[in-house]
Amino acid sequence: MSYILLEKKLKEIADIQYAIAVLNWDQETYMPIKSSASRSRQIATLATLAHQKSCALDLKNCIDAALQENLSDEQKANVTLALKDYTKAVVLPEDFVNRLSMHTSEAYHAWVDARDHDDYSLFQEALTTMIELKREQASFYTTAHPYDALLDEYEPGATVAQLDPLFKSIKEQLLPLLKTIKQAQQVDNSILHNYYKEEQQWNFSMQILQHIGYDFEAGRQDFAEHPFTTSFSSQDVRITTRVDENDFSNLLWSSIHEAGHALYEQGLRDDMYGMPIGSACSLSIHESQSRIWENNIGRGMHFWKYWFPILQKQVNSFAKTSLQEFYAAINKVSPSLIRTEADELTYHFHVMIRYELEKGLIEGSLHPKDLKQAWNDAYQNYLGVCPQDDVTGILQDIHWSHGSFGYFPTYTLGSLYAAQFYAFAKQAIPNLESDIEHGHTNAFLNWLRNSIHAFGRRYTSDELCKLVTGSSLDTQYFFDYAHSKYKDIYKF
Amino acid sequence: MSYILLEKKLKEIADIQYAIAVLNWDQETYMPIKSSASRSRQIATLATLAHQKSCALDLKNCIDAALQENLSDEQKANVTLALKDYTKAVVLPEDFVNRLSMHTSEAYHAWVDARDHDDYSLFQEALTTMIELKREQASFYTTAHPYDALLDEYEPGATVAQLDPLFKSIKEQLLPLLKTIKQAQQVDNSILHNYYKEEQQWNFSMQILQHIGYDFEAGRQDFAEHPFTTSFSSQDVRITTRVDENDFSNLLWSSIHEAGHALYEQGLRDDMYGMPIGSACSLSIHESQSRIWENNIGRGMHFWKYWFPILQKQVNSFAKTSLQEFYAAINKVSPSLIRTEADELTYHFHVMIRYELEKGLIEGSLHPKDLKQAWNDAYQNYLGVCPQDDVTGILQDIHWSHGSFGYFPTYTLGSLYAAQFYAFAKQAIPNLESDIEHGHTNAFLNWLRNSIHAFGRRYTSDELCKLVTGSSLDTQYFFDYAHSKYKDIYKF
Repeated sequence: MSYILLEKKLKEIADIQYAIAVLNWDQETYMPIKSSASRSRQIATLATLAHQKSCALDLKNCIDAALQENLSDEQKANVTLALKDYTKAVVLPEDFVNRLSMHTSEAYHAWVDARDHDDYSLFQEALTTMIELKREQASFYTTAHPYDALLDEYEPGATVAQLDPLFKSIKEQLLPLLKTIKQAQQVDNSILHNYYKEEQQWNFSMQILQHIGYDFEAGRQDFAEHPFTTSFSSQDVRITTRVDENDFSNLLWSSIHEAGHALYEQGLRDDMYGMPIGSACSLSIHESQSRIWENNIGRGMHFWKYWFPILQKQVNSFAKTSLQEFYAAINKVSPSLIRTEADELTYHFHVMIRYELEKGLIEGSLHPKDLKQAWNDAYQNYLGVCPQDDVTGILQDIHWSHGSFGYFPTYTLGSLYAAQFYAFAKQAIPNLESDIEHGHTNAFLNWLRNSIHAFGRRYTSDELCKLVTGSSLDTQYFFDYAHSKYKDIYKF
Repeated sequence: MSYILLEKKLKEIADIQYAIAVLNWDQETYMPIKSSASRSRQIATLATLAHQKSCALDLKNCIDAALQENLSDEQKANVTLALKDYTKAVVLPEDFVNRLSMHTSEAYHAWVDARDHDDYSLFQEALTTMIELKREQASFYTTAHPYDALLDEYEPGATVAQLDPLFKSIKEQLLPLLKTIKQAQQVDNSILHNYYKEEQQWNFSMQILQHIGYDFEAGRQDFAEHPFTTSFSSQDVRITTRVDENDFSNLLWSSIHEAGHALYEQGLRDDMYGMPIGSACSLSIHESQSRIWENNIGRGMHFWKYWFPILQKQVNSFAKTSLQEFYAAINKVSPSLIRTEADELTYHFHVMIRYELEKGLIEGSLHPKDLKQAWNDAYQNYLGVCPQDDVTGILQDIHWSHGSFGYFPTYTLGSLYAAQFYAFAKQAIPNLESDIEHGHTNAFLNWLRNSIHAFGRRYTSDELCKLVTGSSLDTQYFFDYAHSKYKDIYKF
């Protein structure tokens, strides 16, 4: 039966891709420095192999034969998605895939080096080559805007034509809200900037991860330069975090965020290992899962009604802080330089800046040599702040070193989906918020598992959103959520 | 040029094999438990790919064409060895390689589970399948004894016909020496069995590793169930160790032993990545490097003349111990149950027992259901001790779970080579032992690098031994070394 053979082939490709993910995880956690060059070539060789298999003629023949078979709906969906992936992969020449993979490792090391020396110029050359490669990649596809071809890799179907008005509406809605907040009585979050020992922060995060259902028998948390989630099957989904002993919020919410991603991956169907239905829907849906845990739950009053007394017992500094003060502190809105530390509102401007710069770099209207200036200008423009160094400016994100152009917009889409999903979760789960106040998040996780995780790639982001909420993405959910939350905190 | 193409092909095979090594390292250090099944299939898929490439017709054609080219001696050696590897690999059917790889991961997990429950019966079934697979493997080759085919994988050219008399001579020489020692005044090593905190042991071992030249920028040490060394290139060679807080010797000499292996791998030529000349000669030569550091250096008086005063400063328990007492304690000869903790003399009986049992299992004269009894009888017979449980008996070694039959004899060969090499190092390096007493081991490391490491697989074990010492392996060097060392300690 061709479907069985197709399964075998797809699982083998997944094996290689997961092996690459292990090599990457190791590279970013425990790998010794001198290993860089050999690790680059090992990953490149595996990437080439996976690519060869992904666009092999016998895979195509197998897909075509399977399409003729009498299949279940699920099987049909797998075959159709496999055809879509094949069609996308076959366009990229093997030599290009190998060059991209080799350069990705090199660019990563250049980025690490540039960060170590706080010097963008050490990254510029590698970034320039990377952008040339991504422009080359885009040129293999026919799209209205070259950036659309890259977007599609992370968010199937997303386009500049769709994102431009979306970001415009965010600007129109959020700028007045930010102005109102700016005029209100400001929140004091200095309590978060006492000294909190690494071990203490780590241990508290581990309790929360366990509590929200992250399965440590199917994952682990480690430290890395840049927090990320990676998966080697639904039974091995790892997260990383980082620590700042003078910022209590850095480690914790990055851990919860990554755990949100990880809960999604752990919730994918193990019996669909390597198959489209066993894979994540899209990056925006992925991000909706991290954001829903980080913000809608993890920065919510209900969650902290349960956790704050526990925190107070474990960490002395918080003994005299009230729950309301703590809640306001962790939700303080304030324009800042670092995307991953931004509040829920200004966050979207960090994304918008990157979106606009990426578009420029890919269409060729912006050159990497002018990028630092453009970055700094954009921060001044949108947020009224300007980086004083490269580490807190243009070098803060790992994405470009990985060649991930078109990835950032999914962060904003994810927040918007999260707000919409959360609104419907409250309707679907009786007593959701009172459950959370009593330390029970499992009904919520189960709802996510059944409504979102279990489907994998069976539906597109848009189809899934309609299935769960009855309509396509609607930014109003986020604006309503934001308005009601911050009105309470800033009393306007 | 075909040689250039051959290099490319061999390096790609190496990339895949090193990727497998990373997946294995992760499996034995940090991998969460539920990952087992998916990890097994990932490793199996990569192993099949590596095997396919190792016996592909176009590799053979490339080798044949390269043989016609005008090559340097080194290049010629690489091509000749590549042909040898190809000839060996092509015999194994792809389906067999895949089954063996899948089962190896399963058997490993069965072994871990059996150890956790101290119950050999939980491992017996997986072991039985493994032995059937190894018998099948042997059947693909024509050898005088089926075990010879397996030996050849670790020690090219080694045979039962050669090892039987070698172990006989060891018995003949060591049994009288052990008898003499037994009749002498016994050594008190109770000082090694005080309580030594994990952190203290770890830190001390790290200082020694650094000191003897292990490059932490091209490697790292972690904890694992069973100590091992693994390499992902000469620039990334990792070791693992284990700790027993009531046995000071457990962690330290296992670390030095593995570091000896690692120094060899770090000393291989980086410009020969993936090529035969960039690979280790054989497992006996590999073991000679671990043993020479563990025993000839690491349990030698000269080494501790330098290190013991440092140890005394760091670890209080040793404050009132004399150097001579410490030296005797770390060299105490006493029949025991655990191979990796055995002294240098009884060690060879641990190896001999495994050699004889393996031979029986592979030729079919011994069945796994009778193995535990046979193991216990052999220990009683040769060493006068009998395991009271499986963890300190038949389940102590990882090797059979990995399918490594024919591996153990290389441990004894390695010790013998180490003694012979060390005897020549003393002639070659002026003031070697006084250097060591003053904390300088770099001349010794350089000698190993130039005399042994740099050649990789260019010469066979026997050729290399002749090159370094002027003659083939001669057991007399070990007996002379042992006699003189233990005469001093046991005063006979």
